[in-house]
Amino acid sequence: MSIREDANHIIQSALLAAQPDRAVRSALEQASFGPGRLTLIAAGKAAWQMARTALEVLAERVSGGVVVTKYGHSGGPLGCLEVYEAGHPVPDENSFSATRRAMEAVSALDSGDTVLFLLSGGGSALLESPLIPAGDLERLTRELLSCGADIVEINTLRKRFSAVKGGKFAALCAPAKVFSVVLSDVVGGPLDMIASGPACPDTSTAAQAKHIADKYRLTLTPQMKELLDAAPISRLDNVETHVTGSVTQLCRAAETACRELGYEPCVLTDSLTCAAREAGAFLGSIAQYHQNTSRSLAFIAGGETVVRLTGRGLGGRNQELALAAAPGIRGLRDTAVFSVGSDGTDGPTDAAGGYVDGGTMTLLDHLGVELHAVFQDNDSYHALDLCGGLVKTGPTGTNVNDFSVLLIKR
Amino acid sequence: MSIREDANHIIQSALLAAQPDRAVRSALEQASFGPGRLTLIAAGKAAWQMARTALEVLAERVSGGVVVTKYGHSGGPLGCLEVYEAGHPVPDENSFSATRRAMEAVSALDSGDTVLFLLSGGGSALLESPLIPAGDLERLTRELLSCGADIVEINTLRKRFSAVKGGKFAALCAPAKVFSVVLSDVVGGPLDMIASGPACPDTSTAAQAKHIADKYRLTLTPQMKELLDAAPISRLDNVETHVTGSVTQLCRAAETACRELGYEPCVLTDSLTCAAREAGAFLGSIAQYHQNTSRSLAFIAGGETVVRLTGRGLGGRNQELALAAAPGIRGLRDTAVFSVGSDGTDGPTDAAGGYVDGGTMTLLDHLGVELHAVFQDNDSYHALDLCGGLVKTGPTGTNVNDFSVLLIKR
Repeated sequence: MSIREDANHIIQSALLAAQPDRAVRSALEQASFGPGRLTLIAAGKAAWQMARTALEVLAERVSGGVVVTKYGHSGGPLGCLEVYEAGHPVPDENSFSATRRAMEAVSALDSGDTVLFLLSGGGSALLESPLIPAGDLERLTRELLSCGADIVEINTLRKRFSAVKGGKFAALCAPAKVFSVVLSDVVGGPLDMIASGPACPDTSTAAQAKHIADKYRLTLTPQMKELLDAAPISRLDNVETHVTGSVTQLCRAAETACRELGYEPCVLTDSLTCAAREAGAFLGSIAQYHQNTSRSLAFIAGGETVVRLTGRGLGGRNQELALAAAPGIRGLRDTAVFSVGSDGTDGPTDAAGGYVDGGTMTLLDHLGVELHAVFQDNDSYHALDLCGGLVKTGPTGTNVNDFSVLLIKR
Repeated sequence: MSIREDANHIIQSALLAAQPDRAVRSALEQASFGPGRLTLIAAGKAAWQMARTALEVLAERVSGGVVVTKYGHSGGPLGCLEVYEAGHPVPDENSFSATRRAMEAVSALDSGDTVLFLLSGGGSALLESPLIPAGDLERLTRELLSCGADIVEINTLRKRFSAVKGGKFAALCAPAKVFSVVLSDVVGGPLDMIASGPACPDTSTAAQAKHIADKYRLTLTPQMKELLDAAPISRLDNVETHVTGSVTQLCRAAETACRELGYEPCVLTDSLTCAAREAGAFLGSIAQYHQNTSRSLAFIAGGETVVRLTGRGLGGRNQELALAAAPGIRGLRDTAVFSVGSDGTDGPTDAAGGYVDGGTMTLLDHLGVELHAVFQDNDSYHALDLCGGLVKTGPTGTNVNDFSVLLIKR
């Protein structure tokens, strides 16, 4: 097999392992539910797939529930469940009304009942019932997204102004038990940060929330100031949580696939958050040092890198990372770097990521492509397209961040 | 021993191994000289130390020679040698006159004679005899340094306009043999790029040189255009070269020191060239993934990172790299990242680099230091100083790039 075929095999294996279907099945195998009603609540970009798989496994056992996903992400009606589409990343009136339906569905349960709660990326906007006027929430969300606050800070604040986040949804379910299956997309983040933890105790404090509001000089109404002072839910006794399909599993699956192909794999990290271009350069420099190896090596890094936008070209963080590794591995024998987003869509493109090898730079030189200009214009898509370096998988139905791999085949 | 003591030990061991003294001694042990005169020519920032060590080893055997180093880098007279100080990074009249003395010293030798040629970083400016008027050369150097050309491109051009670079110095020595000891400071670069290879065949072509001149739209006189067309010296038969004290050896020495202290070391690379801040973040993310290890681990990366200047604070690339790792290792038990420049002076500071551990962020928070603002102002020195994170070694007398280490002690 060529190194490119190895890469394709590793990509397929890792993406398959991160499928919500597989994640839900494996979590439900470990589940034991109470004797009463079983209510299914699913929220997030993978909510529809997760709910469908749960219905396949549990069939008649599910007595009803609510599914809320992003516009265009529903696959149609699902048995006894109510399926809604709503706004993401900014919650809208459909988010609020679907969430009200979910809250109604869990608010009159008994202690023998169970809520099967399926959470995936995007749940923060999709499962939302604000304690403040919608206009205030919308303004705050826009302020937070534009001021440079990170996802942890944004979610710390969102919890304060929500009737469901920060463990409040699980509190509503009590005395029923909550069996929560979480498809994580927050790199290295604590559990209560995934979709702002509707079924998870809040680890942030009132003081931290106030600090963030001060730091970014956010506009707060008197009502919002009061909510910032409220004590968070620091403990929940009715919740059992299975985190699954995380970037960690993506890396582990890549590791296994590499080993099966004869590579000696080393997972460097599952929480990479640095600049995409620099991460690519780093992998390139690792390739140089290990050229004299007699064994085939694979270095794996999972996470979610960042692209600094300076141009108006087409690309994504995975394509930019891969392309940035090309100069470092120029001319190296049987050496390749690829990077793939697990959702199959890297940036606003139809590619999941990029692939480069020791011959890529020569090819680009030959084609007259100046890499410096490509990066300046954030146009990695077209450069990779010219040299056959686009990785295309189609939408995968999951979203557990990205993984990047350096292969040295011997 | 504490993890900080481990770090200090590793730093001392690696720097000691990279000392020019040790590098010169080890190279001279492998040397056999002809029966005739032995002329010593040393150029670079470590020229004085390298020459002194050679004199200690060879004593009366040396019949004379020339040492040219940077202003402030001479330690005084050295036996039968002429010692000069000159301009760096821009060559000046003293560079030219010292180089003329060196050229005279080697230009009437016999085939039984030997030139011991000791080259270190900075030699490119210090050993220079321009074929074009000094004003033209100075203008070209300034243009090259400001247009964004990389060191490889700069040196490719410099060779064309010099009477000594690109193998021309060794050609002058013929028929005498040249025994060349090179203390490398070009990360991952080919031998002929170190100080523009005065005793090394030129691997670049006339076409490449012209391409660079076009690319940066450099101002060229008719004489300069003519020199760009001249055929380079592509072969030298009278030269034996020992590359030593390189960043590779620095990394190997750190690897050995880590192993002696009970860490399982992994050298990731010896050619890191990405942004300092991103490299620090990358090491921090590696630390997170490997927290559950039962064995002590060390990840080592050598090279020379880059700092993007956005402020007017005090710092250097090693201090910025270390500080940038602090958020990633926040709260992690017995985990540290440090980064050190082998010359002992990181940026315009009295520190060689920086050290952070799992407690650094808590300390900085407590002191009210906002990391974002520190980086914006490139002021890593003062932030590290506040939390005891400066690494100070004093000038080391060597210059073989930097090394960064992540330690996880168990």
